[in-house]
Amino acid sequence: SSMKGSLLYEGKAKRVYHTTDESEQLILSYKDDATAFNGEKKSEFAGKGRLNNLITSKVFQYLHQHNITTHFIEALNETEQLVRRTTIIPLEVVVRNQAAGSITRRLGIQEKTGFTPPIIELFYKKDELNDPLINDVHAYHLTDITEQELTFIKQEALEINQTLQQLFLKAGLTLVDFKLEFGRLADGSIVLSDEVSPDTCRLWDRNTGEKLDKDVFREGTGNLIDTYENILHRLEESVCVK
Amino acid sequence: SSMKGSLLYEGKAKRVYHTTDESEQLILSYKDDATAFNGEKKSEFAGKGRLNNLITSKVFQYLHQHNITTHFIEALNETEQLVRRTTIIPLEVVVRNQAAGSITRRLGIQEKTGFTPPIIELFYKKDELNDPLINDVHAYHLTDITEQELTFIKQEALEINQTLQQLFLKAGLTLVDFKLEFGRLADGSIVLSDEVSPDTCRLWDRNTGEKLDKDVFREGTGNLIDTYENILHRLEESVCVK
Ligand SMILES: Nc1ncnc2c1ncn2[C@@H]1O[C@H](COP(=O)(O)OP(=O)(O)O)[C@@H](O)[C@H]1O
Ligand SMILES: Nc1ncnc2c1ncn2[C@@H]1O[C@H](COP(=O)(O)OP(=O)(O)O)[C@@H](O)[C@H]1O
Ligand SMILES: [Mg+2]
Ligand SMILES: [Mg+2]
Repeated sequence: SSMKGSLLYEGKAKRVYHTTDESEQLILSYKDDATAFNGEKKSEFAGKGRLNNLITSKVFQYLHQHNITTHFIEALNETEQLVRRTTIIPLEVVVRNQAAGSITRRLGIQEKTGFTPPIIELFYKKDELNDPLINDVHAYHLTDITEQELTFIKQEALEINQTLQQLFLKAGLTLVDFKLEFGRLADGSIVLSDEVSPDTCRLWDRNTGEKLDKDVFREGTGNLIDTYENILHRLEESVCVK
Repeated sequence: SSMKGSLLYEGKAKRVYHTTDESEQLILSYKDDATAFNGEKKSEFAGKGRLNNLITSKVFQYLHQHNITTHFIEALNETEQLVRRTTIIPLEVVVRNQAAGSITRRLGIQEKTGFTPPIIELFYKKDELNDPLINDVHAYHLTDITEQELTFIKQEALEINQTLQQLFLKAGLTLVDFKLEFGRLADGSIVLSDEVSPDTCRLWDRNTGEKLDKDVFREGTGNLIDTYENILHRLEESVCVK
């Protein structure tokens, strides 16, 4: 099986490695670093990389069971997973079922306001520009995606939303919003890439409303490791993924 | 004919008055105030109100001659014009033929980059929020417009762009970008409202590239009154509007 090759890229949350034998596969190695507000707030939490690797693996397996294609191949060990190499489209695709976080401040919308249908937002993934919100026409100018591909990405994001809402419901969690990244395989087709974890989703306890995601770090309101452990346990207990 | 009634609203650039006899007509009285960067930079220029009133009047007459409906009825005197009352849709509709101003900083696009087709941007008109950029779905949540109406507004904005490009070309000016506001008449139909002036357009001399608009105030690079006089004279000399 594949062995870890040279480092291709180091991001804020993961290192990306080549594999020694398959040029179209990469290894994502999850770090213990936490960052928020575009890198302004930083910290390290021993065990975070393991938790996000295991949570993302479970989520992607669940998506596969529900016929959603992703870059995910398999978890290799506690902190690393094998994925199909994609060329990431530099868009953060955000799906919002309820208002929370930046949209409440940006548009003056009250937290918990429901969105039916969910709101999709695109952000241009560019650290130097602080990942600005963009519209569809900006996306055509800033990336190589076509109108048809953007329509596909939005449909796929809504489908993923429905599937993840189901998954988290079983775990007693409300999926408030989340961020996706899509990438292009060698054949040009577009698949969900990157991660789906409490770093990239807002998850609220269905009964108590407690925030069980990166907001405990952003807002300094709870223990990140305990929170992410909680999410992992709930997924393990409530969801059958082999 | 109509007389000026009570003050309905005072904005940054204009006062809006009722008329004494026609509830569906208003008087826009152009002020000498200049503001930029969402009110952070402020000044007063004697004669600015007159120039913007006369320039906007010329532009709206030209649009009428080219079968574009607007709120404009007639100039009443040097600083005031009679308009049809509309309920303003709180969107700033920006059309960009070339990159300049906020888009260059926001998206890291070089000034003068051409956009074909032109880029349309929507901003939520809300001073307290600093008029944030929004996408179409935000517009449906934040205003009462329908998808059909937004499609109409965008088509109309592109049509207005073509007509204004022609107009300014005759005056030796390149229309780089501009901001429109649309409003709803009593019967629900949507028409161009507000103003079209060097406060709301970027106009560059076709030969020298000189900036002949509010950027002389924003950037402190020229005399605002001389610049706006220049625009008015060019329009008077090159354009036949009765
Ligand atoms: N399948 C994949 N192929 C190539 N790159 C990927 C894949 N999945 C995720 N990436 C990229 O891996 C990089 C590292 O992830 P991360 O640490 O989250 O980066 P960032 O700091 O940009 O958020 C990111 O640029 C991400 O887009
Ligand atoms: N035909 C119209 N009917 C009603 N209001 C209008 C019409 N045309 C423009 N307005 C509004 O007049 C107000 C005053 O204009 P302005 O001073 O430019 O305001 P602002 O400070 O909001 O930019 C604005 O709210 C503008 O939208
Ligand atoms: Mg990331
Ligand atoms: Mg105004």
